[in-house]
Amino acid sequence: MYNLLKGKRGIIFGALDESSIAWKTAERVHEEGGVFVLTNAPASIRLGNINALAEQTNSQVIAADATSVTDLENLVDQAVEILGGKIDFVLHSIGMSVNVRKGNHYTNQNYEFTEKGWNVSAVSFHKVMQVLYKKDAMNEWGSIVALSYMAAQRVFPDYNDMADNKAFLESIARSFGYFFGRDKKVRVNTISQSPTATRAGTGVKGFDGFIAFAEKMSPLGNATADDCANYALTLFSDLTKKVTLQNLLHDGGFSNMGVSQEVMEMFE
Amino acid sequence: MYNLLKGKRGIIFGALDESSIAWKTAERVHEEGGVFVLTNAPASIRLGNINALAEQTNSQVIAADATSVTDLENLVDQAVEILGGKIDFVLHSIGMSVNVRKGNHYTNQNYEFTEKGWNVSAVSFHKVMQVLYKKDAMNEWGSIVALSYMAAQRVFPDYNDMADNKAFLESIARSFGYFFGRDKKVRVNTISQSPTATRAGTGVKGFDGFIAFAEKMSPLGNATADDCANYALTLFSDLTKKVTLQNLLHDGGFSNMGVSQEVMEMFE
Amino acid sequence: MYNLLKGKRGIIFGALDESSIAWKTAERVHEEGGVFVLTNAPASIRLGNINALAEQTNSQVIAADATSVTDLENLVDQAVEILGGKIDFVLHSIGMSVNVRKGNHYTNQNYEFTEKGWNVSAVSFHKVMQVLYKKDAMNEWGSIVALSYMAAQRVFPDYNDMADNKAFLESIARSFGYFFGRDKKVRVNTISQSPTATRAGTGVKGFDGFIAFAEKMSPLGNATADDCANYALTLFSDLTKKVTLQNLLHDGGFSNMGVSQEVMEMFE
Amino acid sequence: MYNLLKGKRGIIFGALDESSIAWKTAERVHEEGGVFVLTNAPASIRLGNINALAEQTNSQVIAADATSVTDLENLVDQAVEILGGKIDFVLHSIGMSVNVRKGNHYTNQNYEFTEKGWNVSAVSFHKVMQVLYKKDAMNEWGSIVALSYMAAQRVFPDYNDMADNKAFLESIARSFGYFFGRDKKVRVNTISQSPTATRAGTGVKGFDGFIAFAEKMSPLGNATADDCANYALTLFSDLTKKVTLQNLLHDGGFSNMGVSQEVMEMFE
Repeated sequence: MYNLLKGKRGIIFGALDESSIAWKTAERVHEEGGVFVLTNAPASIRLGNINALAEQTNSQVIAADATSVTDLENLVDQAVEILGGKIDFVLHSIGMSVNVRKGNHYTNQNYEFTEKGWNVSAVSFHKVMQVLYKKDAMNEWGSIVALSYMAAQRVFPDYNDMADNKAFLESIARSFGYFFGRDKKVRVNTISQSPTATRAGTGVKGFDGFIAFAEKMSPLGNATADDCANYALTLFSDLTKKVTLQNLLHDGGFSNMGVSQEVMEMFE
Repeated sequence: MYNLLKGKRGIIFGALDESSIAWKTAERVHEEGGVFVLTNAPASIRLGNINALAEQTNSQVIAADATSVTDLENLVDQAVEILGGKIDFVLHSIGMSVNVRKGNHYTNQNYEFTEKGWNVSAVSFHKVMQVLYKKDAMNEWGSIVALSYMAAQRVFPDYNDMADNKAFLESIARSFGYFFGRDKKVRVNTISQSPTATRAGTGVKGFDGFIAFAEKMSPLGNATADDCANYALTLFSDLTKKVTLQNLLHDGGFSNMGVSQEVMEMFE
Repeated sequence: MYNLLKGKRGIIFGALDESSIAWKTAERVHEEGGVFVLTNAPASIRLGNINALAEQTNSQVIAADATSVTDLENLVDQAVEILGGKIDFVLHSIGMSVNVRKGNHYTNQNYEFTEKGWNVSAVSFHKVMQVLYKKDAMNEWGSIVALSYMAAQRVFPDYNDMADNKAFLESIARSFGYFFGRDKKVRVNTISQSPTATRAGTGVKGFDGFIAFAEKMSPLGNATADDCANYALTLFSDLTKKVTLQNLLHDGGFSNMGVSQEVMEMFE
Repeated sequence: MYNLLKGKRGIIFGALDESSIAWKTAERVHEEGGVFVLTNAPASIRLGNINALAEQTNSQVIAADATSVTDLENLVDQAVEILGGKIDFVLHSIGMSVNVRKGNHYTNQNYEFTEKGWNVSAVSFHKVMQVLYKKDAMNEWGSIVALSYMAAQRVFPDYNDMADNKAFLESIARSFGYFFGRDKKVRVNTISQSPTATRAGTGVKGFDGFIAFAEKMSPLGNATADDCANYALTLFSDLTKKVTLQNLLHDGGFSNMGVSQEVMEMFE
C-alpha cells in the first residue's frame, strides 16, 4: 500500500475469477490508488464472476470481444469517458487455444482452430494497441503490459500452439512498442510468468507435471498470481519509465536454470 | 564441390528467380550431388523462371500453394515417387506480407491482410511439417530448414508484420522440431539471414537503408544469397546431425554487434 | 515518495559524485525510507565527494577495497551493527579497466591490467556475495543488484575488456543467485543500463558517439542515472520478490532495436 | 570424407586422450584433408597420449602453456613454418577449474584458484588470438573456434566457476571476433556443446546426473565428441564464411527445451 498508482487510469483485460492474474492485479491496482475499467469477452463474463470484482474495486465492467475492433473502439471510448481522461496503463491477459481445448496434438492441428487461437491470443494485443494508438487514448509515459509464457522461447510439449501464439504476442510488443514509444512515449512490455494455477493454466494437459517441475527448478519457487500482480504494479508505476520492448521473466529464476541440484539428483 | 549431399533427396520451396536464396541453394545442392523437386505457388511460377532452374538442375517442378494442405499432400507424394524414396532435406523459403504490399503502416494494419500474410509466411511451415510427419515421409536424420530474419527478435521498422510472422515461424521450428526430433530423428532449424537483395527483399520500403546499415555494422559484411546457399548445405549434410531447434544467425556478425566503429563515427 | 523501502537496510557501493548512478540511487532510497551505509575504495572516496552524500542522506561511509575480502568482512560487520540488523538490499556499482585507462586497444592487452580490471569489476561482486552469504548477513527476500552494460552481449568497440568483465559479472549473478535464492531466499539481478554520462562513462573513448547513437536508436531515448535509481528501487522493494537471476535491460528500448527509422535514414 | 578441408592448415589445442573433443576433431580434420599442429600444456602431454594422435594424423606436437604469451608466440611461429604457410583454422579446447579440482563449493571460492582457472580457461583464448592477430598469422576467411558450455547462460550447480569462465570466453569470441573480422576477414565462434564424457567432463561432480538429465531433455539426445568434431569441420570449411561472433548450440536441442515429455512425466 504505497499509493504507487495514485491518479492513474487503466483498462484491465481478462479477469475471469479469483485465480486470474488479471483479478489479482485489479485488486492490487485498486489498493495502490489506481482506477480502471474491467473488460472481458461476453462469454467469459458469464462464465466467471467479474461483477464481484467490479464491486469490490469500485469499477465498471465493459464487455468486449478482443478480436473485434469495433468492440475495442467502444471499450476505449467508454473507458476514457468513465475514468475522466486518457489511459495510463493496460493489462492484456488473454489467451486461448482451440486445439488445446479440443485435444488436438501439436502435430495434428486443425488450422481453423489454429487461426482462432492466434487471433484471440495474439492479434487481439495488436488490435488493442492499434485502437489506443489511433484514438491517441494513452497518456505520455503510459504503460502497456501483456502476459506471456516462456514457451515462446522454449519447448513445453503440452503448451501446444499457444507457444507460437505467445511468440507472436511478444513480437507485437516489440514491433508496436517501437512506434508507441517513439510517437507517444508509451512503453510496451510482456511479463513471462511462471506456470500459474489459474483456470486457464490448469486446463492445459500435463499442467501438474510442469508446475511441479518448474517449482523444483526455480531457486525461489514459482511466482504466483499474487506475485505477478505486484510485479505488474512496478511496470505501471512511474519508476520504470524507460523499460520498454522487453519480455520480463517473472519466474523465481526458472528461465536461467539449466538444472537444479534437486532435479539433477533424480537422475543420478 | 565435395559431394556433401550425395544420395540425398529433398524439396525446395520458393525459388522465384536467379536472386532467390532458394534458387542459389538449389544450384549448390545440385553441385553437391543432392536431388530434389522444386515447388512454388502457381502465381510465383508464372512470375519467375523456375523452369530454367529445373532444367539446369535436372529437377521437376511441382506447383503447390503452401497454404493448402491438399496441395502439400500431393507435393510430398509426388516428390517421394519422383525421387525414389523418402525425403532427406527441405528448404522453406516463403514469405509475403499483404500489409507491406498495400503500403499499410504497422500501426494501421488491415487484419485480413495480417491473417493472409501470417498464413502464407508462417503457418505454411507448420503445414509442410505436419504433412511430412503424418505421411512419415522424412528419412531419419533428415533436416528441415526455414529462412527467417532477425526482425523476429529486434525492431526493423519497415519490416512491418513480417517481424511477427518470422517470430511465429521460428517458434514453429522449435515446437515441431521437438516432436520431429523425438519421434523421427529429424532436425528442424531456421537460418536468420542478413538482409538480401532478392526480389522479395528489395520490395520492402527502406530496404536500401537497412542493407547499407547492416553492411556497415557487420564485421564481415552482409551474408549474400550465395553464402546462405553454402550455409544451408552444411545444415542438410550429415555433419550437423545434432543441431536442432536452433535459430542460426547468418549475418557476418551483425546480430552480436552493438555498434561498429564506422557507424559510431557518424555520431561523433 | 511512496515509502517503498521503509524499514529496509542496505549497502551501496560506488557513489563517487553527483553523476554516479549509485549516488542517485542512494538519494532515492533515502527518500523512500530506506537506510544504508555507503562504501567505496579509499582512493575513490578521496577523488569524489561521498561525504556530502552521507550527510544529505544521514548515512555513514565505510571505506572498503572491494577486491579485499578482509575489507568486505569488516564492511558487512559494521553495516549490520550500524543499521541495527541484517541487510535487505545491496547495490554493486563498480567497474574499472586499466587497459582502457592506459589506452591499450582490445587487441593489444596488457594481461596484468586485464586481471586487475577483472578483479575490480567482476570478481568483487562474487566476493561481496560470498562474504554476505557466509556471514548469513542478508534477510530473507533481500535483493542484490549489480550494474552491467549491454557490451556483455554485443560488441561496442571502445568498451574494451569491460565487455568481458560485464559478461563475467552477469554470470556471477546467475551462479551465485541460484545458491543465494535456494538457501537464503535472496534475489540477485543485474541492471543493464543505457550508456550514462557518469564520470566513469565519459572516460571511455568514443563515449559521445555511442551515447548519441543509443539515443537515436532508442524509442524512449536513453535511460538516465535518475531513471536507473528509480528502477533500482523497484528491485529492492517487496514488489519484485520472484525476479531473480535476470539481466534486466533498462535502456529506453535500445536492446531490442535492430535499427530505428532515424538511424536508417542516415544510410539511405 | 569430402575433402572439405583440403589445403587448409591449423592449430588444435587440447587433445588429451581418445575421449577428447579435440582428439576427435583432429582425426576428422585429417580425414578431410586438413593439416595441423597439435598442442597442449607440457603436463597434459605427459598425462595423455597425444603422440599417438600425432603419429596417426601425421602431425607434429608443440608443447605450449596457453597462459604464456611467449609459448604461444613460439607455437604460432613454428606452426607457420612446419605447415608452410599462414593458419586457416584454430580449435581452442581448454578448460580447468582449480576450485572444482579442490572441491571448493561455488559459495566458498579460493580466489587464487578462481584467478588461475579464469586465466587457463578464458584468458588463454584472448592470448591465442592476440598472438595470431599481431603476427598476422591467419589467412583471410580463416576460422577460430573455442569450445564452450551452456553454463555460460544458465545455472548448472556443479559446473562451479567454469560457468563464469565460459561466459568470459564467449564474450572474448565476440569482442575479438569483431576486430579479427573487420581487419583480417577471420571469423570467431564458440560451440556450446552437450555435456560430453571426456576426461575433463567426467571429473565434474554430479556429471552422471546432468548428462542423463540432458539426454532425456534433448529430442535428439546429447551430441557426442564425434558429433562435435563433425560440426567443427563445417565451421572450419569454406561453407560458413559469414558465420561469426556466434555461440552455436550443439546439443541435440537441449538449449531450447523447457521440459521434455519424458522428464515432465517424472513430476506428475
